[in-house]
Amino acid sequence: MKRQLLIAIMLTAALALASIAAAAEPLASWNDGQAKRAIVDFVQRVITTGGADFVPVPERIAVFDNDGTLWIERPMYVQLAFVLDRVKALAPAHPEWKDKQPFKAALEGDLKTVADGGEHALLELVMATHAGMTTDAFARLVKDWLATAQHPRFNRPYTELVYQPMLELLAYLRANGFKTYIVSGGGIEFMRPWAEKVYGIPPEQVVGSSIKTRFELRDGTPVLVRLPEINFIDDKAGKPVGIQMHIGRRPIAAFGNSDGDLQMIQWTTAGPGARFGLIVHHTDADREYAYDRQSSVGRLDKALDEAGRHGWTVVDMKQDWKRIFP
Amino acid sequence: MKRQLLIAIMLTAALALASIAAAAEPLASWNDGQAKRAIVDFVQRVITTGGADFVPVPERIAVFDNDGTLWIERPMYVQLAFVLDRVKALAPAHPEWKDKQPFKAALEGDLKTVADGGEHALLELVMATHAGMTTDAFARLVKDWLATAQHPRFNRPYTELVYQPMLELLAYLRANGFKTYIVSGGGIEFMRPWAEKVYGIPPEQVVGSSIKTRFELRDGTPVLVRLPEINFIDDKAGKPVGIQMHIGRRPIAAFGNSDGDLQMIQWTTAGPGARFGLIVHHTDADREYAYDRQSSVGRLDKALDEAGRHGWTVVDMKQDWKRIFP
Repeated sequence: MKRQLLIAIMLTAALALASIAAAAEPLASWNDGQAKRAIVDFVQRVITTGGADFVPVPERIAVFDNDGTLWIERPMYVQLAFVLDRVKALAPAHPEWKDKQPFKAALEGDLKTVADGGEHALLELVMATHAGMTTDAFARLVKDWLATAQHPRFNRPYTELVYQPMLELLAYLRANGFKTYIVSGGGIEFMRPWAEKVYGIPPEQVVGSSIKTRFELRDGTPVLVRLPEINFIDDKAGKPVGIQMHIGRRPIAAFGNSDGDLQMIQWTTAGPGARFGLIVHHTDADREYAYDRQSSVGRLDKALDEAGRHGWTVVDMKQDWKRIFP
Repeated sequence: MKRQLLIAIMLTAALALASIAAAAEPLASWNDGQAKRAIVDFVQRVITTGGADFVPVPERIAVFDNDGTLWIERPMYVQLAFVLDRVKALAPAHPEWKDKQPFKAALEGDLKTVADGGEHALLELVMATHAGMTTDAFARLVKDWLATAQHPRFNRPYTELVYQPMLELLAYLRANGFKTYIVSGGGIEFMRPWAEKVYGIPPEQVVGSSIKTRFELRDGTPVLVRLPEINFIDDKAGKPVGIQMHIGRRPIAAFGNSDGDLQMIQWTTAGPGARFGLIVHHTDADREYAYDRQSSVGRLDKALDEAGRHGWTVVDMKQDWKRIFP
């Protein structure tokens, strides 16, 4: 046992030194400003033992929207780019798609016609590309696609178009005993295959929209088959519902960027004790994109008004972030 | 920093000593027999770095059924006792229940008539007692009920009628880097209010059946309201579906006691690498109950056959457990 103890002590010393190094500059890509100060102030208050705002570790739950909060969502949601590429890949087996909307428009890259079809058209494309295979097969499709797909403007894989300041924020919260969750309108099984590697968020801490699955024995081997039927939409008023379903307790901090995150931030910040709400405002057309009240993707209108009313922190991307991407 | 380092080293030493003490007798209430040996053998194989069966910590996921696996399920599911008591508590506001089935039978404690009404009758009782309030209010109802309700035979609170050997098993797995989950046919929000205190399992590691909820602003305050509508049944073929939804990866160990756990154990043990399936066989009418193939509650028939076929471990409660309850 003596050697094990020695190893444990050495490990601890190493970890302590590492955390000292990290603590020296936990949010290196954030400019010193109101947003950074508000984050650090909140974290210090909830971790201070004996302080009025102390929160025990198990209750330090932080929830993050994904699209536009942790990674890029322009010119279109990344998952929509995946859908369009999957339609193209599957087209040879579906000759009828050449003359059938919304598939025709998807094949021609005619996003306007796809958008004009509304939710119904989008749903048709999602079901044709996301259902009919096992959960394992779908995870492989997502991983394979992300390994080669590139963003049309930045010519980099989407998994490199995550926000460096937010990666630092995730790490800073975890270093202070927080459990970090994704709570996204995007597909839960679209995010899980890469969220652990890219964000350090394991599959069980990803909440998202989903289709139904069915358990089957195929030649004696159990599989889960993805069905063309909506199970849950984790957006807007669905976000607090998804949080309760998966986490079962109210977060103390919520991070979003659009009106789709409004109810999640309301739910989070309405609890007792210290609470934190933050909105990423896309203000940087040069380094990323600038959009808010009039945008069709990631519209930030009501939530921006509510942020002012409730004292939520608003990140001005252009002012607050030294770098955007890693 | 020097003092912090010293504290860290002392903490580690203390933890190391504590784990040595615990390791001396990790499964004290288990008799030395095949079941205990199979558990220890499995755990040692998956934690041995460099071994053929080594499993990294994040993938050490273990799932446990609740009723009949972690706590008592006879003479009726504990949640059904809660339902019946709630019907009685609500009866003064529902004079019509005196002449209306299945409420009449529930009020008279006539379980046979309730059972004869089948799933539909049960569902009516559940909806009348589980819906219509906020999630916070429901959690309080559960906690208040458990604080006073007693088991009719053992005259002890239900939370004391958990299986001591299984508590030790949960602790042993966690001490070896496992994340322990409940995956139960019971209500997810019926288990969460007490699972952390009784089992050491936090709300986010509880998977169960659920009704739908709706986000509302009541006088500006956000609430989640429980609706009289089934959301998900986490039983039989639903258990692997619930596991995928909440955990997003396949467990490596599954523990159950009835045919309701069959698919969960199939799904768990069919994965690659070291896998473990275990079934608690209720064989002890003196100290608890004895039931299996013919039982209406917790029937163990197909799963017992499958256990033999696949080499899952079967616990003989009478032979394998020194004590039943704490």
